[in-house]
Amino acid sequence: MPKRILIINGPNLNLLGLREPDKYGLQTLESVNDDIAAEAAKLELEVGFFQSNSEGALVTAVQDAFYSDDTYDGIILNAGAYTHYSIALRDAISAIKIPVIEVHISNVHAREEFRHTSVIAPVCSGTIIGFGTKGYKLALHSFL
Amino acid sequence: MPKRILIINGPNLNLLGLREPDKYGLQTLESVNDDIAAEAAKLELEVGFFQSNSEGALVTAVQDAFYSDDTYDGIILNAGAYTHYSIALRDAISAIKIPVIEVHISNVHAREEFRHTSVIAPVCSGTIIGFGTKGYKLALHSFL
Amino acid sequence: MPKRILIINGPNLNLLGLREPDKYGLQTLESVNDDIAAEAAKLELEVGFFQSNSEGALVTAVQDAFYSDDTYDGIILNAGAYTHYSIALRDAISAIKIPVIEVHISNVHAREEFRHTSVIAPVCSGTIIGFGTKGYKLALHSFL
Amino acid sequence: MPKRILIINGPNLNLLGLREPDKYGLQTLESVNDDIAAEAAKLELEVGFFQSNSEGALVTAVQDAFYSDDTYDGIILNAGAYTHYSIALRDAISAIKIPVIEVHISNVHAREEFRHTSVIAPVCSGTIIGFGTKGYKLALHSFL
Amino acid sequence: MPKRILIINGPNLNLLGLREPDKYGLQTLESVNDDIAAEAAKLELEVGFFQSNSEGALVTAVQDAFYSDDTYDGIILNAGAYTHYSIALRDAISAIKIPVIEVHISNVHAREEFRHTSVIAPVCSGTIIGFGTKGYKLALHSFL
Amino acid sequence: MPKRILIINGPNLNLLGLREPDKYGLQTLESVNDDIAAEAAKLELEVGFFQSNSEGALVTAVQDAFYSDDTYDGIILNAGAYTHYSIALRDAISAIKIPVIEVHISNVHAREEFRHTSVIAPVCSGTIIGFGTKGYKLALHSFL
Amino acid sequence: MPKRILIINGPNLNLLGLREPDKYGLQTLESVNDDIAAEAAKLELEVGFFQSNSEGALVTAVQDAFYSDDTYDGIILNAGAYTHYSIALRDAISAIKIPVIEVHISNVHAREEFRHTSVIAPVCSGTIIGFGTKGYKLALHSFL
Amino acid sequence: MPKRILIINGPNLNLLGLREPDKYGLQTLESVNDDIAAEAAKLELEVGFFQSNSEGALVTAVQDAFYSDDTYDGIILNAGAYTHYSIALRDAISAIKIPVIEVHISNVHAREEFRHTSVIAPVCSGTIIGFGTKGYKLALHSFL
Amino acid sequence: MPKRILIINGPNLNLLGLREPDKYGLQTLESVNDDIAAEAAKLELEVGFFQSNSEGALVTAVQDAFYSDDTYDGIILNAGAYTHYSIALRDAISAIKIPVIEVHISNVHAREEFRHTSVIAPVCSGTIIGFGTKGYKLALHSFL
Amino acid sequence: MPKRILIINGPNLNLLGLREPDKYGLQTLESVNDDIAAEAAKLELEVGFFQSNSEGALVTAVQDAFYSDDTYDGIILNAGAYTHYSIALRDAISAIKIPVIEVHISNVHAREEFRHTSVIAPVCSGTIIGFGTKGYKLALHSFL
Amino acid sequence: MPKRILIINGPNLNLLGLREPDKYGLQTLESVNDDIAAEAAKLELEVGFFQSNSEGALVTAVQDAFYSDDTYDGIILNAGAYTHYSIALRDAISAIKIPVIEVHISNVHAREEFRHTSVIAPVCSGTIIGFGTKGYKLALHSFL
Amino acid sequence: MPKRILIINGPNLNLLGLREPDKYGLQTLESVNDDIAAEAAKLELEVGFFQSNSEGALVTAVQDAFYSDDTYDGIILNAGAYTHYSIALRDAISAIKIPVIEVHISNVHAREEFRHTSVIAPVCSGTIIGFGTKGYKLALHSFL
Repeated sequence: MPKRILIINGPNLNLLGLREPDKYGLQTLESVNDDIAAEAAKLELEVGFFQSNSEGALVTAVQDAFYSDDTYDGIILNAGAYTHYSIALRDAISAIKIPVIEVHISNVHAREEFRHTSVIAPVCSGTIIGFGTKGYKLALHSFL
Repeated sequence: MPKRILIINGPNLNLLGLREPDKYGLQTLESVNDDIAAEAAKLELEVGFFQSNSEGALVTAVQDAFYSDDTYDGIILNAGAYTHYSIALRDAISAIKIPVIEVHISNVHAREEFRHTSVIAPVCSGTIIGFGTKGYKLALHSFL
Repeated sequence: MPKRILIINGPNLNLLGLREPDKYGLQTLESVNDDIAAEAAKLELEVGFFQSNSEGALVTAVQDAFYSDDTYDGIILNAGAYTHYSIALRDAISAIKIPVIEVHISNVHAREEFRHTSVIAPVCSGTIIGFGTKGYKLALHSFL
Repeated sequence: MPKRILIINGPNLNLLGLREPDKYGLQTLESVNDDIAAEAAKLELEVGFFQSNSEGALVTAVQDAFYSDDTYDGIILNAGAYTHYSIALRDAISAIKIPVIEVHISNVHAREEFRHTSVIAPVCSGTIIGFGTKGYKLALHSFL
Repeated sequence: MPKRILIINGPNLNLLGLREPDKYGLQTLESVNDDIAAEAAKLELEVGFFQSNSEGALVTAVQDAFYSDDTYDGIILNAGAYTHYSIALRDAISAIKIPVIEVHISNVHAREEFRHTSVIAPVCSGTIIGFGTKGYKLALHSFL
Repeated sequence: MPKRILIINGPNLNLLGLREPDKYGLQTLESVNDDIAAEAAKLELEVGFFQSNSEGALVTAVQDAFYSDDTYDGIILNAGAYTHYSIALRDAISAIKIPVIEVHISNVHAREEFRHTSVIAPVCSGTIIGFGTKGYKLALHSFL
Repeated sequence: MPKRILIINGPNLNLLGLREPDKYGLQTLESVNDDIAAEAAKLELEVGFFQSNSEGALVTAVQDAFYSDDTYDGIILNAGAYTHYSIALRDAISAIKIPVIEVHISNVHAREEFRHTSVIAPVCSGTIIGFGTKGYKLALHSFL
Repeated sequence: MPKRILIINGPNLNLLGLREPDKYGLQTLESVNDDIAAEAAKLELEVGFFQSNSEGALVTAVQDAFYSDDTYDGIILNAGAYTHYSIALRDAISAIKIPVIEVHISNVHAREEFRHTSVIAPVCSGTIIGFGTKGYKLALHSFL
Repeated sequence: MPKRILIINGPNLNLLGLREPDKYGLQTLESVNDDIAAEAAKLELEVGFFQSNSEGALVTAVQDAFYSDDTYDGIILNAGAYTHYSIALRDAISAIKIPVIEVHISNVHAREEFRHTSVIAPVCSGTIIGFGTKGYKLALHSFL
Repeated sequence: MPKRILIINGPNLNLLGLREPDKYGLQTLESVNDDIAAEAAKLELEVGFFQSNSEGALVTAVQDAFYSDDTYDGIILNAGAYTHYSIALRDAISAIKIPVIEVHISNVHAREEFRHTSVIAPVCSGTIIGFGTKGYKLALHSFL
Repeated sequence: MPKRILIINGPNLNLLGLREPDKYGLQTLESVNDDIAAEAAKLELEVGFFQSNSEGALVTAVQDAFYSDDTYDGIILNAGAYTHYSIALRDAISAIKIPVIEVHISNVHAREEFRHTSVIAPVCSGTIIGFGTKGYKLALHSFL
Repeated sequence: MPKRILIINGPNLNLLGLREPDKYGLQTLESVNDDIAAEAAKLELEVGFFQSNSEGALVTAVQDAFYSDDTYDGIILNAGAYTHYSIALRDAISAIKIPVIEVHISNVHAREEFRHTSVIAPVCSGTIIGFGTKGYKLALHSFL
């Protein structure tokens, strides 16, 4: 049975392709997700997708990936701005028992000081930063 | 007429009993609430319960305990991770005129540095930390 | 065609007139909005109103003012407590291409230390602080 | 055999009822201790009392509660100002094997910045803050 | 009798129109003052103007607006670089009993870190930042 | 009836005249006290003297100057090293209702960084620093 | 020949008696200077007076007290707000070879954080804080 | 012609498999390099290997990958402890015009505070953390 | 005549052998002192012993080792928790003219952050850390 | 036509030769200026001189070197103490379009901590520190 | 078989006896090593010696003491300036399984602030500071 | 006999002319050195050249300029990135008795925050920053 991986995107990532294309590229989230799905198929992984601007909804999505009936074997999480302050999200990640891979599209370390801190990194299994939307696909490979 | 007390639990406390049992114990939130209700009955207090992972929903719940039709005489609040950064919650507590008791199940001061700061403590009436789920019941006693 | 301006109010501003009247005055949000609408009419501006206690909902409202079908020419934003930590809101403001004016009713610099920092100020066009509810109307004038 | 609990009060708490009554109330320490004794009797607990202005004497009192012949099953400790810097007291608490409950009469988090830090909190079992002298009695309940 | 408002500009603002036009625009101070005077006339306000590079002269100008024979009903103050460190100016503002409105032409929060702190903001009545030279005129409106 | 003033000296001041004479001079504490007594006589003030190396004893001495039977009208306090960290002493000063004058023999601001902070200064009536042992006598004058 | 002492007052001290009388009292600077002159006469000291709002003028006054023809044997300096940041004034004090006594009317340590630091204290001979305008007279005594 | 990638390992990575196997695994560097070479072959990439404990040698290796005769198309760099302070290495990376991928075997964010800062991250193209030695292979994929 | 060395132990060291044996070992203070005495005898040194939980008593003991009739040629001092904040103890060490060797049983640098700072180290002659109770004996050797 | 260079000296530099000769040497400012003029003549540069203790006068002098009728091709500026906090001076330097060379006579980095920061360095063309008064002449050479 | 101990000295210690003799004494490194060898012989220990100015060479020397063919039972390490920042050296110490004793000749805590931090202390077995070159010999004793 | 000056360049300065030409110019190190040699000849100074990427090699080069057979009368040192953290280099400079002039090609104060600190500046004789490669030649002049 193929591993099931949930791709979670946080606030403002619904604007991919529209927002600051020099940092985030020109591809829409929908199109990025299609690419991820195609790559997953090649790697014989099953993928689900979730996006929300709401911290609480993201917390619940992380919880449900492990505690609901619709469980996954791992999460690829781009928490967007919540990366830098959402201890609630950190606690949700700590509370589940499947690996969570943190992904950032742009090189957050080359941007504003406040983007250099990730409060979720210490409880994630791994972090992939700065590869554009290809980062999600590298994260898929890490589940092989 | 008995005093009415609202028990509010914040993010990830819906996972009580499932999540990190060494820190939070093995009892589910439902079962903890049953115990609180039983204790309240003994103390002739009336209790309501609310849990949410969403900061905004918690803000609204705190507001409604005083400003809606369904008012309470006090709040027992375990704000979970929002304790450490939700100034919005702090402002909601400041905006109401009933006492709010802050409760934490684990001894947050014996954990990570960032858990040592509570942005809501200065506007709460009192704080009870580290007594496990018994803390909610001690808080009930404080309303006698 | 008149410019369309969206007035967005954040957490606890639904309690205007009820909450800490020494800081925020005695007028309710509804009444303040009526005044703003009247002033807008005089200035031949069209205005919309939105209030939420939820960070995610505010992020979405900012996005929609530019990317939805119901677009505006500018935003007047009192982000309340989120002013001080919502990088998600900051990113939403960066993502849209219409001016956002930051307004605070009270003089935040004369209050607690943590209210002296605005994470959204660097990406807003302008800031108006400390004029009471008259600040919203000054912000309207800035769009002339 | 009833549990034996030692109530330890630190510097300036001998002035209860005299000193800054808006923060500490009008009851003298003697009268507060009488109330605690009465509550303890109801709860079938045995209580002892100790107060000192001297850090060294407090350290010794904590040690003796466990290592002397006159042992106790728990300590309720209001360390007063030493709360904020007495690592010696912290080490004494770490050195004994009975629970220590930290109590503060006023809400220290609503006062000066330097009162927000407790160097003993990480080694206490629990903390009760802001309930006036009722806090000692809540602490007694925690031993049931 | 019309309200009398004094417009005070601090160091280097005499170079408006010459200095860093991307930040401060192309209009000279003289021309800006003409615009302000015109707007004031429309609003039936009387205005005076003062500019100095000297901290002491600015302190004296603020004092004199209230304590000399030539008094005003309010001050609009762009303290330039002194904004960030002149406690002397802050004390002068505290010492007078007429409102002082702080104005900045550029969005200081989008510039160097040291420009994010205003030592005078806590004692001003209000602050208007980032509207270019239009900010002085918005400040005039606030006196209506 | 003459005012009664208590001169309290803290840790290591018993070594005056012996210890680091370049900083503290060559006069012994006994001899300094004789001089103070002589000056007091001239000024028609009555003086008492207390010295201790113990923080707790100093706290008690401050308390007793107001709350014991042997009361004084003011205290001149050189708290020595405790100046820099004894919040217990600070609380004792806050707890009494007679003025306390802080005196330091050497210019503490010209010495190590940690000597630049006085935790008792905010609750003392006045501070006199750097006049050698003459400082005690200046403090006496302040009671006239 | 009597010692000659120069009394220098910094920014906003020209407003004594007018400005924030709860902090600075009701006596005008002129009247305070009269009192100082009277006391000096009693102590057989000669006094001069200087006040300026300008940092540069104060620097020059300090220099001239030693290097001009009109020399003094000591300076009593209330540098007002410049106390907290004028390294120029500090350097002037270092450059002269007569004692400078720092005086503050109010207890600066009981006020805002930024008033707790004096950049001139390390190079002054002594400091007298919190005795109201009597502090200038105590400083005179220190020259005996 | 296949892309040529240089794998550079910094201080103590020569001890892989020997040193703290709970953090770094049991595989020796030689064996890890064999795996990387095998993966590279599959991906039709050519790889070179370099390890040194010397900061200077690593600086030179980075320089030579671009400026020597033996050039590469990219670098995969695990700078070990130098990650946290070698500005020299950072400058070398800035000086070359091929992408550098930063890799860490363990999750540095879950370890000591000083390991949370990377001075080279801002000038690397991407970062891969916490995937064990598999991280080097994910980095290879990023060059496809 | 043999050199006389005073061994001073601070707060909680009376509990050696009882308290946290993983950090401090299983030997009681009495037994440790016996070992030190035996080693001293071998090295032809004379030793005295003092322990107290009281900061003031330790200050006095340090003073008396030099200024009383019962003088010593050196001190070996384990100040326990007072190491980290007792400036009073530091001043006592500065005030005497015999060498003081600072000893810690455990490696304080491998423990909590606040144990990394010693306020007495700068005025001690030497420091010996982390050798268990053998450290006292190494300190004896340093007096040869 | 020879380049024209303006030598500006800030507060207390009028006391050169008198003040702290171990740091600033024994030559008076007049004599130093003579030497500079002689060197300038040799290098075929024309020089002007300005000194003031007033921040505002220095700001104006910097402005006038470019914007007045009496223009220069460059400035050599020893801002004295203003170096460390005068953002007004910094802004004046930014506002002109001729190079400004920062000179310090003593090695400011070997003195007090607060002298290590120059707020004007980032906007100067170059900095020359620690060469005594020879530094002004090196600065002249930089204009060749 | 005698224990084998490696004495490692870091940067600039090759200049012992030449460099700053007030801090480091007049004995050359060669002569110090002779003394150590003589003491070792008395204690029946075998010693080796290594000195380098290169961080990488020191890292390798620490590694080789355990992982090479020429193994030792312990290391005495004076890392010189690298003490304060070489995390590479710290990692090397963590990577080996023999005790490392940190030695400093001068009392680093009585010198510049930056010398008060040792990044290697937390992973060393013990630390000996301030005994001059005798410290190496005390360290030898610790291996008995 | 001409003075002999050693020009030492640190890490990445071997890439001059290749690396970031907007900051460092287009001239290669070889060509810069030729220019320096030519200027030295004019000034009748003898020069040597050394460049290394290795901290240890630079330490040794500084030492050898004074302690080896091939001695110099002064050093001109561009320590590159090591400027900001190499205490080892600082100690080497302190250990020699010839002047060391610190040179930086670009204005380090106008670049990243971490480039504003020089750990070697306090022990150098002088510093020359921001004059491009002309800075080396100005440094030569300082030796006349």
